[in-house]
Amino acid sequence: MTQGERDFFEKSDADIRRRVDASMSERSKAPLFGERERVALACRVLAERGHANTLAGQITARTEARDSFWTTDFELGFGETAVSNLLRVDQEMRVLEGTGMANPALRFHMWIYRARPEANCIVHTHPPYCSALSMTGARLIVAHMDATMFHEDCAYLPEWPGVPVANEEGRIISQALGQKRAILLAHHGMLTVGKDLAEALYLAVLLEQAARQQVLASSLGPIKPIPPALAADAHGFMLSDKMIDATFANWARSAARRYPEALR
Amino acid sequence: MTQGERDFFEKSDADIRRRVDASMSERSKAPLFGERERVALACRVLAERGHANTLAGQITARTEARDSFWTTDFELGFGETAVSNLLRVDQEMRVLEGTGMANPALRFHMWIYRARPEANCIVHTHPPYCSALSMTGARLIVAHMDATMFHEDCAYLPEWPGVPVANEEGRIISQALGQKRAILLAHHGMLTVGKDLAEALYLAVLLEQAARQQVLASSLGPIKPIPPALAADAHGFMLSDKMIDATFANWARSAARRYPEALR
Amino acid sequence: MTQGERDFFEKSDADIRRRVDASMSERSKAPLFGERERVALACRVLAERGHANTLAGQITARTEARDSFWTTDFELGFGETAVSNLLRVDQEMRVLEGTGMANPALRFHMWIYRARPEANCIVHTHPPYCSALSMTGARLIVAHMDATMFHEDCAYLPEWPGVPVANEEGRIISQALGQKRAILLAHHGMLTVGKDLAEALYLAVLLEQAARQQVLASSLGPIKPIPPALAADAHGFMLSDKMIDATFANWARSAARRYPEALR
Amino acid sequence: MTQGERDFFEKSDADIRRRVDASMSERSKAPLFGERERVALACRVLAERGHANTLAGQITARTEARDSFWTTDFELGFGETAVSNLLRVDQEMRVLEGTGMANPALRFHMWIYRARPEANCIVHTHPPYCSALSMTGARLIVAHMDATMFHEDCAYLPEWPGVPVANEEGRIISQALGQKRAILLAHHGMLTVGKDLAEALYLAVLLEQAARQQVLASSLGPIKPIPPALAADAHGFMLSDKMIDATFANWARSAARRYPEALR
Repeated sequence: MTQGERDFFEKSDADIRRRVDASMSERSKAPLFGERERVALACRVLAERGHANTLAGQITARTEARDSFWTTDFELGFGETAVSNLLRVDQEMRVLEGTGMANPALRFHMWIYRARPEANCIVHTHPPYCSALSMTGARLIVAHMDATMFHEDCAYLPEWPGVPVANEEGRIISQALGQKRAILLAHHGMLTVGKDLAEALYLAVLLEQAARQQVLASSLGPIKPIPPALAADAHGFMLSDKMIDATFANWARSAARRYPEALR
Repeated sequence: MTQGERDFFEKSDADIRRRVDASMSERSKAPLFGERERVALACRVLAERGHANTLAGQITARTEARDSFWTTDFELGFGETAVSNLLRVDQEMRVLEGTGMANPALRFHMWIYRARPEANCIVHTHPPYCSALSMTGARLIVAHMDATMFHEDCAYLPEWPGVPVANEEGRIISQALGQKRAILLAHHGMLTVGKDLAEALYLAVLLEQAARQQVLASSLGPIKPIPPALAADAHGFMLSDKMIDATFANWARSAARRYPEALR
Repeated sequence: MTQGERDFFEKSDADIRRRVDASMSERSKAPLFGERERVALACRVLAERGHANTLAGQITARTEARDSFWTTDFELGFGETAVSNLLRVDQEMRVLEGTGMANPALRFHMWIYRARPEANCIVHTHPPYCSALSMTGARLIVAHMDATMFHEDCAYLPEWPGVPVANEEGRIISQALGQKRAILLAHHGMLTVGKDLAEALYLAVLLEQAARQQVLASSLGPIKPIPPALAADAHGFMLSDKMIDATFANWARSAARRYPEALR
Repeated sequence: MTQGERDFFEKSDADIRRRVDASMSERSKAPLFGERERVALACRVLAERGHANTLAGQITARTEARDSFWTTDFELGFGETAVSNLLRVDQEMRVLEGTGMANPALRFHMWIYRARPEANCIVHTHPPYCSALSMTGARLIVAHMDATMFHEDCAYLPEWPGVPVANEEGRIISQALGQKRAILLAHHGMLTVGKDLAEALYLAVLLEQAARQQVLASSLGPIKPIPPALAADAHGFMLSDKMIDATFANWARSAARRYPEALR
């Protein structure tokens, strides 16, 4: 064994991990498109990953000026959303920019923003696998590395309050969410909250993926959760800035290539 | 809390719901294509959502003149249907316009139109998840908000009468359907009835989606139905004019972009 | 009720069925491409429907001259097969036309042609749902109208003889098949036999579809077979010349549009 | 029966098998692209077969000069990898060519290369069906011909060591793998090792396919393994040079047609 090999294979795990954590905490240098382009591309990513089979679902992203929110026109699915048809709404859901109607369910977004001032983006959808879980009362089981970002970070609302457009729904959804980044909503779907658009989208896509994994694994037999200490450690790694930024950039670039009309 | 916030977050739920219901009862202003284009696009929507793996299935849509029905040529699947190859048939299934053979199973459509004069469109298909339910005798369980349009609005025909081309089939299918908007047919598939094309298509796509959700959720454990009172309330919301019109317009525009040949 | 309506709604079912059966027994007038084009398009249909994830599987189609068989080059999957790269082999698997190697598993095709002189096309593949059945010993259950063509027409080979390239495999597969049109092969896949290419392809696609339905329905609970008398009647309807010809033409035209390179 | 027929149908199975084995042991003559093109195309094959829903997963391929490894930029998913953005790293994961960061998880690749000098390519991914197995502790069951390459050739690591970037992970993964070609990693995914890129890719795609088959078959009932002696015989056949080379060439050509940008 050469000295180089010894250095490599005998380096202490604590040292390695420290270096990896440092590199993963860097913000990604990848160009992330403009503010509105990122919203439009996020919609296309959601659409192509099964979050937009109907008009159900909404995204809101606080503007950089922090005084209002980007969202979509209710009559356009995520798959038709583009830079030119975004709406900008204030916190009372009044349209400030763009033409169209905001989704009446944005009301519960506003309850969450009020309770969580650090939140800058919310994604709510009814994707198939989270919806399947929502029909049985199943909670998310963290049984795979790629679901560890939800370790003690995925709440559950066990009742469906009915058509979710009123203040009561805002009250119970924001209460059930608490300080977590994600929530599964019985008979309804899922919601994720991010410090920015990239984080909320990353969580939305991966929560649906985790739900899909749970459905698939359920065919095989009982699911074995990851030990909590390991899951807690991985939670931070999977939510590191570089992981989220790089994943978002990868998805956004792919969406931009496939749906150039989203940028218009 | 500002006055604006107070107004927003403390508005009564009854007031909110009244306003939302009013806005959802408006017909959508979106351009909905011409009469024959809408039929052809509906076929493409069905094809891309798994309703047309074989030639099984039919759509009929009463003409605006109300004297006959648009349908497809038996030898063309939904995926090949276009404005130029539609057939127009009378209520005795005679071809009045276009060349080709009407599907012999249109006979049961005619039984339904006779029993349901308000019906203007019928969709019948054999999509995979409704078909899976049909093989086991499972009824649809309304366990998700996006299935509430079927609350007490999805009938069940527990026997398969054999090759469904004769009057006996028309008699038993129209009887089993009764006044409902949808029916699951044992060993066979599903059928939806709408006051217009948009409604019948919306129901067809969402019934198959609801069946898919039921299959997925069944892997996880027992399914919990939505409480009937909430389901009944949501039923009206999910069948509001704006919801149907906007959803149809979204699907039709997407199909027109993907399959421009359907409009020729 | 007008006289026309009475004639329509009171016509006897026996009369209706006689007329429908007559119209369904006509050969389709649709242009069905040339002999080699049909083979190449059948390969593309199989590829896009999940029958060609690897190089496993073969098709053989007796030439119109009846002295040899069209097949594919072993090194090309169904998805790369085109008119210009087909092989023509004799009944001892010698390549008479084209360059490349015939799949060594063609040997069991030759055993079947010897036992079934009326057969003119064989399709053998390892598609996912027939393969799933093959891993558990499950037989096909005819529980849906669209599976009735397999009523008493789908054999089962309960053992896997090992790598299926020798005469022993030909002997046991052809014996297990007997006079049926289809067979499920344990640990292996499926095989269909047709009086022409259209029939063998139709059966191959629909057998995999029926197997998929069985997997999906199995999540829901016990499957209820169709009563044998109804299944027997539908068997003939689903195998009528017009049904097969029109379905084949629909699939072949679609494949020709999507994969024009297959015709070169 | 003619003499030719007798020769064909009565040939001894041992003779047939000898000839087939000889023809399958030939290397394929198909042009296999250049060294870096093959790496980029393998990434695209993995992406289109569900191995790249996130940035998780890595491929390393020893260079022809045998002094370093081709790999991908951590910030690019397999679906964005192309000849021009590959990285070349040394065995201490230092980037020698290209710009970007190597995936920190390459460390366990280096442990495997050290333990298995004959290995020239490693693929590690988190695809959905292997991931489903990994959540339940299920081992791979060889119950289909197309899974026989894993007969006594798929190891299992029953614990997840946490974020897999340190030397401890390299130690336990390489130990659990031993001399096998594949391994399932609990709560994590799968890894395959090949004497060349074609073999590692072939194993990766087919391991995920085998896992998918196991999930599908589990809906139907208990799975019946293939008898070990038959599986052992088929193992060699399925890993013959021609089978691997031809399959790889088929996939690579298809990827090159679909993603020409991968070659730039």
